[in-house]
Amino acid sequence: MSLELEQPTLQEQFEQLIATEDKLQIRDFLNDQNISDVALLINEYPDHESQIIANMSMHRAAMVFKILDFPTQKHIIRELPSFKQAELLNELPADDRTDFLEELPKEAIRDLIKLLDPEERKITLSLLGYPEDSVGRLMTPDYVYVYAHDTVQDVFATIRKYAKNSETVDVIYVINEQGELIDDIRIRDVILAAPDKEVHELIDGRVVALNVNDDQEHANQVFKMNNRVALPVTDDNNILLGIVTIDDILWVANEEFSEDMQKMGGTEALDEPYLDIPIFKLFRKRVVWLIVLFLGELLTATAMGYFEDEITKAVVLALFVPLIISSGGNSGSQASTLIIQAMAVGEITVNDWWRVMRREIISGLLLGTVLGIIGFLRVVLWHQFAPNIYGEHYMSIGAAVGFSLIGVVLWGTLSGSMLPLLLKRMGADPAVSSAPFVATLVDVTGLIIYFSFAYFFLQGLLL
Amino acid sequence: MSLELEQPTLQEQFEQLIATEDKLQIRDFLNDQNISDVALLINEYPDHESQIIANMSMHRAAMVFKILDFPTQKHIIRELPSFKQAELLNELPADDRTDFLEELPKEAIRDLIKLLDPEERKITLSLLGYPEDSVGRLMTPDYVYVYAHDTVQDVFATIRKYAKNSETVDVIYVINEQGELIDDIRIRDVILAAPDKEVHELIDGRVVALNVNDDQEHANQVFKMNNRVALPVTDDNNILLGIVTIDDILWVANEEFSEDMQKMGGTEALDEPYLDIPIFKLFRKRVVWLIVLFLGELLTATAMGYFEDEITKAVVLALFVPLIISSGGNSGSQASTLIIQAMAVGEITVNDWWRVMRREIISGLLLGTVLGIIGFLRVVLWHQFAPNIYGEHYMSIGAAVGFSLIGVVLWGTLSGSMLPLLLKRMGADPAVSSAPFVATLVDVTGLIIYFSFAYFFLQGLLL
Repeated sequence: MSLELEQPTLQEQFEQLIATEDKLQIRDFLNDQNISDVALLINEYPDHESQIIANMSMHRAAMVFKILDFPTQKHIIRELPSFKQAELLNELPADDRTDFLEELPKEAIRDLIKLLDPEERKITLSLLGYPEDSVGRLMTPDYVYVYAHDTVQDVFATIRKYAKNSETVDVIYVINEQGELIDDIRIRDVILAAPDKEVHELIDGRVVALNVNDDQEHANQVFKMNNRVALPVTDDNNILLGIVTIDDILWVANEEFSEDMQKMGGTEALDEPYLDIPIFKLFRKRVVWLIVLFLGELLTATAMGYFEDEITKAVVLALFVPLIISSGGNSGSQASTLIIQAMAVGEITVNDWWRVMRREIISGLLLGTVLGIIGFLRVVLWHQFAPNIYGEHYMSIGAAVGFSLIGVVLWGTLSGSMLPLLLKRMGADPAVSSAPFVATLVDVTGLIIYFSFAYFFLQGLLL
Repeated sequence: MSLELEQPTLQEQFEQLIATEDKLQIRDFLNDQNISDVALLINEYPDHESQIIANMSMHRAAMVFKILDFPTQKHIIRELPSFKQAELLNELPADDRTDFLEELPKEAIRDLIKLLDPEERKITLSLLGYPEDSVGRLMTPDYVYVYAHDTVQDVFATIRKYAKNSETVDVIYVINEQGELIDDIRIRDVILAAPDKEVHELIDGRVVALNVNDDQEHANQVFKMNNRVALPVTDDNNILLGIVTIDDILWVANEEFSEDMQKMGGTEALDEPYLDIPIFKLFRKRVVWLIVLFLGELLTATAMGYFEDEITKAVVLALFVPLIISSGGNSGSQASTLIIQAMAVGEITVNDWWRVMRREIISGLLLGTVLGIIGFLRVVLWHQFAPNIYGEHYMSIGAAVGFSLIGVVLWGTLSGSMLPLLLKRMGADPAVSSAPFVATLVDVTGLIIYFSFAYFFLQGLLL
């Protein structure tokens, strides 16, 4: 049965049950549903959200809780009685618990950590000790490990003993007495092997591990390039600390994507679904960048003021101002997006700046020439139909527009492509060199380029 | 051993070995490396790429091949002798083979499919029959299935028999005699169960399946919300056709991300790494949109021409043109990015248009008012220092600028947010309503808004 086929009746069933207030039946019903369907119910009936979580087996409640968005998680925790808070937090997988806690204010984290069992508390505190966006924050210490001298039978016994609490048994980790990672084996190979074989006969010595301080985006790349559903995490001394599972990486990829997009659109990362974020918060996240960009754009008024005399002498120059600056802005945001995206997926590093620059100089000249020719033709051809707009110097006006376009587009692609690299080099997030940011930068310089060419071609004629 | 620690010597070892031309040793060396390391060697020694693939065990060669980027894959296939081509293609997992073939021109696909064994050929043709970007294209028919009346012992026997050829044994699928999907069980639960238990005692009736025609982005969401490393794929009659594994979804998520970003930056999707794409192709992918945008921007020159008389009478009006149109463009691209991103992650659907519109009207008015006040103050305060720029009517000029900003920003956020929804409604890709596209749209209307306000406030004074 697919997700879609069940949906029509799910809500009706739930509404009927809630009306009966029969806790046992509600519990049975909720325990029978897929976790994604329970999450759906929680999103559709926000008044019942904590009731839903409280009325499920705590293990399943934790599975549902981990896929909810953060604001919903926060509401639920706030509404639950404290013994239920404790049960839920203890039941949450360590990595998802870290993920939830790290979003909360410091005092709230402290209060909630007090609710944890001593063992879980120790784990949580150590995971929260790793830097934000590091692999350590995604790690779970619940995995199955065996030793090289164990037999396949021993491995099965270990799995039976620990599988309940481990995130995955699809990959088993082989360590030595010092806790150093030797290799990983897939469950498939264990099942295929004879029961008396020893683990060291199954391993191939090809293990890929993440370092606990690695960036999460790096982990994304490593997962893409290695056929594993989980990867081991080690410290600098190759001691196995935990594992990261691929489903967490899929969440990271989706979140990174949203954040990068929002930054590139000139907003702070929202961190909440668009329709859920309070409107004033949405406004605050947007207004800061808009003001910064606006203050930058104010320089265009200053620059234009500087050329006021030229405009007075040749009003015709003003007509092309929007065209010129927008062309620079468009080519600049095109270039910056390409480079930010290529950096995000690891195709370009800061060290490639020279190769990028060479490509962008060529691209910028080509693109600028194409637009320049169109711009020139626009002026010259238009003149044939309406000779009084541009007057007798239409060829010179056309040349000024055409050459300005080459200059502005070249400048746009160059600054658009170099800015993300420069930001990265300075340790900042390249995604903030968003399209609007580049466009604003190019606007001011575009005006200077345009009026310089105009002066060159029209000096003694109109100017 | 982490990936990083091995790298320094990997290249040296490889260069030494290649110099010896000892095929056996090269083969042993390559078979001992991680697939991601072999992929690295291929990228660093493009002259040896097909040699590397040809000198590995074919199973491992296929694992390496599938993680290479498409242009490299194409080179390698072209350079391999045809018996090696056949071996490699037959060895590739069905889903990765589809992924590779679908990028090729039609005739090349036909030639390569002829090389396949009859069984693999049948599978490939059926997978290529599903629509592009559908779940069917990601599917692999290599999975392990059992029946409800099988015992746990039977399940292990089935796994031992078929595990070699299946993508994953982490999840086992339960079907009935008609081939309909009943449920899935995780390997963990099979290992934990007593050998004589029957499968129907292990299943919980909670199965999430993808439909073969589902969109790949939908599959991404379903994987995020369900704790599975693989999901079954069924047709409309609930017949199990294949499975999709989470690692393919991670690739899809990364690719979708790149494509969306590139489109939003006003480029066609590159489909190749930035540094690898031939410069002329890069130019072609970029120039089309730039020309379209440029033709749109040409309307600004027409609009400005229409207001030439006003500019001649009050040159001061021209000074604020870049500021006004850029503010509209910035707020527009901000809004469009937010909406495209929210649609991409499934937070907003077309049906939410009214809620979005309400939010954007409020946001637009708030944002516009803030910028309008700053703009007004800029004119009024500047006048105190340089009274001769704006003259005696500086208050009216300030009002014209301020109110235009409110109008332009409101128009920018509204059109920026509605355009992606409109495109989606018409069946187009919302990501093409990119920042540059919205900016261009807003530029022309922004000029009209500005000169209308200017006329209203300055009529009888300057105009």
